[in-house]
Amino acid sequence: MKAILIVCDGLGDRPIKELGGKTPLEGAKTPNLDRLAREGICGLVHTLGVGLRPGSDTSHLALFGYDPGVYYHGRGPFEAAGIGMDLKPGDVALRGNMGTVDEKLVVLDRRAGRIRDTSPYAKALDGMVIDNIKFEVKPGTGHRVGVVMRGRGLSSRISDPDPHEIGVRVHEARPLDGTRDAKFTAVVLNKFLEESHLILKELKANEQRVKEGSPPGNYLLIRGAGYVAEIPSFEERYGLKAACIAGAGLYKGVARLLGMDVIKVEGATGLPDTNVEAKFRTAVKALKQYDFIFIHVKGADSLGEDGNYKGKKEFIEKIDKAAKTLLGLKDTFIVITADHSTPCALKMHSGDPVPLLINGPGVRVDEVREYGERNCMKGGLGHIRGLDLMPELVNLMGRARLIGA
Amino acid sequence: MKAILIVCDGLGDRPIKELGGKTPLEGAKTPNLDRLAREGICGLVHTLGVGLRPGSDTSHLALFGYDPGVYYHGRGPFEAAGIGMDLKPGDVALRGNMGTVDEKLVVLDRRAGRIRDTSPYAKALDGMVIDNIKFEVKPGTGHRVGVVMRGRGLSSRISDPDPHEIGVRVHEARPLDGTRDAKFTAVVLNKFLEESHLILKELKANEQRVKEGSPPGNYLLIRGAGYVAEIPSFEERYGLKAACIAGAGLYKGVARLLGMDVIKVEGATGLPDTNVEAKFRTAVKALKQYDFIFIHVKGADSLGEDGNYKGKKEFIEKIDKAAKTLLGLKDTFIVITADHSTPCALKMHSGDPVPLLINGPGVRVDEVREYGERNCMKGGLGHIRGLDLMPELVNLMGRARLIGA
Repeated sequence: MKAILIVCDGLGDRPIKELGGKTPLEGAKTPNLDRLAREGICGLVHTLGVGLRPGSDTSHLALFGYDPGVYYHGRGPFEAAGIGMDLKPGDVALRGNMGTVDEKLVVLDRRAGRIRDTSPYAKALDGMVIDNIKFEVKPGTGHRVGVVMRGRGLSSRISDPDPHEIGVRVHEARPLDGTRDAKFTAVVLNKFLEESHLILKELKANEQRVKEGSPPGNYLLIRGAGYVAEIPSFEERYGLKAACIAGAGLYKGVARLLGMDVIKVEGATGLPDTNVEAKFRTAVKALKQYDFIFIHVKGADSLGEDGNYKGKKEFIEKIDKAAKTLLGLKDTFIVITADHSTPCALKMHSGDPVPLLINGPGVRVDEVREYGERNCMKGGLGHIRGLDLMPELVNLMGRARLIGA
Repeated sequence: MKAILIVCDGLGDRPIKELGGKTPLEGAKTPNLDRLAREGICGLVHTLGVGLRPGSDTSHLALFGYDPGVYYHGRGPFEAAGIGMDLKPGDVALRGNMGTVDEKLVVLDRRAGRIRDTSPYAKALDGMVIDNIKFEVKPGTGHRVGVVMRGRGLSSRISDPDPHEIGVRVHEARPLDGTRDAKFTAVVLNKFLEESHLILKELKANEQRVKEGSPPGNYLLIRGAGYVAEIPSFEERYGLKAACIAGAGLYKGVARLLGMDVIKVEGATGLPDTNVEAKFRTAVKALKQYDFIFIHVKGADSLGEDGNYKGKKEFIEKIDKAAKTLLGLKDTFIVITADHSTPCALKMHSGDPVPLLINGPGVRVDEVREYGERNCMKGGLGHIRGLDLMPELVNLMGRARLIGA
């Protein structure tokens, strides 16, 4: 038995007047998803709990069965892992941009003119050691970078040095609690940022930019410090050899931190123009090597955040077309759900539960005929939490561990 | 976005043969409640958990999102706050009656002839200090009083000095656990009751009563010791400026302890003759000043405890008539539920889940056409716990805090 889990980011929504009181998913023509629902079992998922409004990182941890209360200590590690950085328990990771500051350290441009490649900048800073803490710096996409701090006595309980706006001076990291580790981490990080600024100011690559009239990348604007906890791998936990197919870094990062392989797919962009069908086709092929494929599809979330209900509905129809690839697979469970709702009316994540369908051999097929928020309400799985999804799936696959004797 | 939460005390019930197998709510004609349900989303609430039988205090804490396991340490504080006493963390509060005892401290009358005003009695005892513990004593309604103990080292783990029956000697407070605080609290309280008795025996007001042939108020019969815990205010927790409209003291007390303002309404009695419409009208007006109004309506509970299913059904119809005031409000969520069931067949609180409707902009309207226990079973909110209600509401209002990033 194998499984494909498709997380359609931000899929859930609320009734929209212009769609005749339907949600984008309810309004979309989705014959393939409907068929999967009709021949499967459905329900609603409260990823973090009833009414709780999930971030993208916490909701994915919950869907994979990892309690965010235990395993989530800030976003940094997931972003760093997403750009291929290797992390160890005890590390503190941050994400950030190459930015531009003036002589008084006032932020002029948070992205240094949307600098295209931060490799030379990252390389100039990578490997610095301060007070026995080693700093790893790697380029992300575009103007982005990842920073990993490694050594003893680190904490993620520090404030963001990135002021998140222009026209103000960069911040110093401050400890957010009274522990020695938080104070130490803030002190070391501030020394690193100061030292980095001196190095970046003199960097060759910046000389060139200034000549061209582009803002130099002379300051690391970093945020989202996260502590890397001991985390059992997905395979250890469920006995499933797993891989991830995603466009955006964060989701690859979550998958990598759980020990999943990441499969690269041509045309998977993390944007509404992404090639959903290529992702699904790649997943089906990868089932030969893996037991479990996690596919992340971002588009519906971005369109929800724009309030673009028409675009969201059309993107869902694009997912549906691609889902044809998933019909008729043997000995395979297809799970389609979301990490959270992104109602077009709110233009942000919400705590409204998300639809869930599980299609696969032997499930108790229920009366849900179409895949949608209010149809799934009546499904046989009822209302579950995100943390319940993997146990439910592993059980349906006949691979659950016996509790007791 | 604003919200009105209406808690119809003891609303839930069980099928009653004489009502054709319907519950009082199902049997009542409730066109306005039905409309709110039809245009809203419904569900069932297990206020404390499945099958758990809630008290009035614990169930309200849960509905407001405060775990009774953390914040409930006895009823006293809620009653004391309900009669306007100010409480501080660390206080122990008790409620009680002015009673009548003979020379051997045997209880002759638990309410001292239903004495009408305990002000002179409370005043005579208020402010006493024993072993560094200060006693505040304030009059409640009729024969009732509130007692607050303030100082270091207090515990609510003591037995009731009130023997709860006549013809027996008053009890001494005894520690209910082995802690020094419980022992100390019992000792100090017993000294206070002894000293109080000496003062009350000599009180002018009692001379007058004895002359008239009325039983004197010569002993404080107190019970329900409760510890006042640190409790974050409702506004702190949800960012909602809140007010309470209630007839009975306990509910005002819960609201005051959570930092809500209490709005007085003429004709709100806490009895089945209460003016429900005046309460609803006052709430709608108060929405100008507040984000959240909690309305408590007591009648259905009292009638359920009398086993008076006909009266309960009629009282529900009275609520329904008043609910007309709530139709068509803009940018406002109307939540109608109960703190617990009070089945007429049992004549007491039960753990049967209570119906819930949430009506407001953008909710995923479900297929429930009428407000009732068994219709709400099929609602889109499913089964939730009392603690889930506020997160759900705050999420629907678009005001939930993001968890993660």
